[in-house]
Amino acid sequence: MKRIRVDYNYVMDKYIAGGLSEEQLEEYKEKAKLGLSRLLRMYDNGDAGFIGLPSQSTAPLKKFAKEINGKFNDLIVVGIGGSSLGVETVCNAMLPFGYNARSFAERGCFPRVWVADNVDPSKINSILSECQPEDTFVCIITKSGSTVETAANFGVIYEWLTTKVKNPKKQICAITDPEKGSLRAMANDKGFVSFDVQPNVGGRFSVLSPVGLVPAAILGLDIDKLLQGAMSANKDGYEQILTLSAIYMYFMDKGKNINVMMPYSSRLISFADWFCQLWGESLGKSKTKNGQHISFGTTPVRATGTIDQHSQVQLYKEGPNDKVFTFIEVLNHDKDKKIVSPYEAYDYLNGHTLGKLCNIELMGTEAALKTADRPSVKISLDIVDEYTIGALFMLWQYIVPVIGLAYDIDPFDQPGVEEGKDYAYSMLGRKGYDSTKDILTEIYKKQNDFIV
Amino acid sequence: MKRIRVDYNYVMDKYIAGGLSEEQLEEYKEKAKLGLSRLLRMYDNGDAGFIGLPSQSTAPLKKFAKEINGKFNDLIVVGIGGSSLGVETVCNAMLPFGYNARSFAERGCFPRVWVADNVDPSKINSILSECQPEDTFVCIITKSGSTVETAANFGVIYEWLTTKVKNPKKQICAITDPEKGSLRAMANDKGFVSFDVQPNVGGRFSVLSPVGLVPAAILGLDIDKLLQGAMSANKDGYEQILTLSAIYMYFMDKGKNINVMMPYSSRLISFADWFCQLWGESLGKSKTKNGQHISFGTTPVRATGTIDQHSQVQLYKEGPNDKVFTFIEVLNHDKDKKIVSPYEAYDYLNGHTLGKLCNIELMGTEAALKTADRPSVKISLDIVDEYTIGALFMLWQYIVPVIGLAYDIDPFDQPGVEEGKDYAYSMLGRKGYDSTKDILTEIYKKQNDFIV
Repeated sequence: MKRIRVDYNYVMDKYIAGGLSEEQLEEYKEKAKLGLSRLLRMYDNGDAGFIGLPSQSTAPLKKFAKEINGKFNDLIVVGIGGSSLGVETVCNAMLPFGYNARSFAERGCFPRVWVADNVDPSKINSILSECQPEDTFVCIITKSGSTVETAANFGVIYEWLTTKVKNPKKQICAITDPEKGSLRAMANDKGFVSFDVQPNVGGRFSVLSPVGLVPAAILGLDIDKLLQGAMSANKDGYEQILTLSAIYMYFMDKGKNINVMMPYSSRLISFADWFCQLWGESLGKSKTKNGQHISFGTTPVRATGTIDQHSQVQLYKEGPNDKVFTFIEVLNHDKDKKIVSPYEAYDYLNGHTLGKLCNIELMGTEAALKTADRPSVKISLDIVDEYTIGALFMLWQYIVPVIGLAYDIDPFDQPGVEEGKDYAYSMLGRKGYDSTKDILTEIYKKQNDFIV
Repeated sequence: MKRIRVDYNYVMDKYIAGGLSEEQLEEYKEKAKLGLSRLLRMYDNGDAGFIGLPSQSTAPLKKFAKEINGKFNDLIVVGIGGSSLGVETVCNAMLPFGYNARSFAERGCFPRVWVADNVDPSKINSILSECQPEDTFVCIITKSGSTVETAANFGVIYEWLTTKVKNPKKQICAITDPEKGSLRAMANDKGFVSFDVQPNVGGRFSVLSPVGLVPAAILGLDIDKLLQGAMSANKDGYEQILTLSAIYMYFMDKGKNINVMMPYSSRLISFADWFCQLWGESLGKSKTKNGQHISFGTTPVRATGTIDQHSQVQLYKEGPNDKVFTFIEVLNHDKDKKIVSPYEAYDYLNGHTLGKLCNIELMGTEAALKTADRPSVKISLDIVDEYTIGALFMLWQYIVPVIGLAYDIDPFDQPGVEEGKDYAYSMLGRKGYDSTKDILTEIYKKQNDFIV
């Protein structure tokens, strides 16, 4: 039985003006097939390593998680971008809302979890004032080992740990490249437990590597089920991958420059953030075609149903028709809750449940966008669990590079972030970055011109 | 001394290609002045009530908050959209990260806070399993009184309360229209304490009314300071309001259909969400001009520095030049934290602080976008406190309607959300909504066509 279903009626010209004909869909699926074959060839040549992750052995990860289980009240994950968004997604989907407010027993002896992503002293101070050094386990995650925010936050946390704990290395694990980079060197020197992110697995494609799996295992989640779900996309998902890739490509070509990911569940809010990174950083690229410089890509936007019906749907319905929408529906909400009307004016709600209401509202929005010829697809999950989350991850990990490769875009690099980093290093006084100083001084001549 | 500064160098053609000339800025400021004069005329005629909110009396609110202080471990705020985003913004900015995980004493005897916004059984179940009925205070907020999600969530919570508590009305307050609507009727019938949202204050403009102030006061925040900050925009903010409105209008006219709000602080993430509602729902409108139907508006996108440097900045720098960026900088981060390098490779971080690093990264990104001719403005706050948050609220509460009114758009309505609501009511079997049933059946004929 398929646990994920894709309904793409409302992108077809049978239902909306400006939609695809069946011929166009086939044509774009051929384009997607080209992208997919390029992707699979890369994998055969030792790249695009995310494809092989579902078949990795999880035994060492589970063994490690078991060893530290029950020993720590808190887990701090230090990472940013691809090293934090996957963990956040899994936690948001699988841990109860307000998990960190629960007692140790209520949590089944699993630790609370704090993601130290931003270099924001307020956030880091708050985390450290909540945790006790002797009762805290720290995962530091950076594939390259050079991520400045992660290094800075870890520096603060490591100092906090070492001033109170005699043997801090027993409370730290590092997740990074098996050989390269400063985190690998530090982990080896200091004797931290470590797990490898294979060199052919990019940061934003790493959630199903130890990057996502180690924290998930420490939190008691079923990482085998995550991988089984991911495997299902590998095995049976090609038709969904090709269809969705084709649809997104069609609307990109039609000039819709915004891609809205809108799950109808608070448990999938972080999934939409994860998607935004994967989409934006993989496809937002400059390329040169026939000697001409072209800016490629569309902008991912996260929305949440039903919340954003009270925020963004007005714009979606009546504003510019510049978007393609992806809804995610949860067919069966866990422990669905019967609504009891608190007052006669609300009696029409009696007999319904919160989850059913949520899904009815999704149908209402879907219909209202349809009548305004705004294209939408709907992904339906039977339930939210590790399996469907794993499948969602893998589905989009295919779709995004399939689209990139079909358009001769490298979906695995991110050259556009280097310049800003170099400027920052220069301002930090890091050796080897003096050369950008003059450029920066020139840029920052502004300062006193236009200010109110 | 000005506590908020607006730096708009990098939207000017002196610095970026495609930017404004000084003449164009003046021209667009004239347009903005027209919008502002229309807005102020509306206020004089008894509309646009948000403008008057800073001078309201807060004594009754503070008295009420004092009465219940120390008596409850938990506060559940039931509301959605304009009735929750403001509260979330104030909490995100002013309460420590992980606040709900703190003990009663650590919280200064103020309650934990749970916002029941979405009709998601998982979220509501989690909240109720964390709280004890006898120890929980509930604020239900809906201006109109008819918001279906709020009614449904309150129904569930009210039932939970009444099965355990003899006199539940002592634990509930309602915030709604002074006379109209079902929540007003219920509050009167059941004897809930209530606070008024004046009819001329729209939901997304209501954060400085009791909607935002009552929860903030219960949580021990300084609501007078919020209003003082808001007042400062009223008094001294016109130059900033006109300048920013002019800039946004110029780039709207130039076809940049995406407006990115990117604070460099985890404390302002919810502010960006609040902004997205205000912008999207106020300006995303259809209008008729010379007999032609026009879709108006641009799409707001929330981003967070430094996190989204590892997610969206690749796209921002190299993808399509279809955006205008608004950075928010915090000049002085509270209790800034010195970075101690954990390993020699990171020694370049020694001597810096987390907050300084955050601001340096903002400068790096700003410079990198500038060299790619991507327009950005930077709002600098001296610190994050109730005053600057209040000022930010008011600044954008002016800017958005100024832009709308300058373009003959009604920034205060949201007609585009009615159709989806009507469909939902029809599916719920609500009386009076049978007529949409046939339309829906027609729309939903699809179902079995295009599914993979």
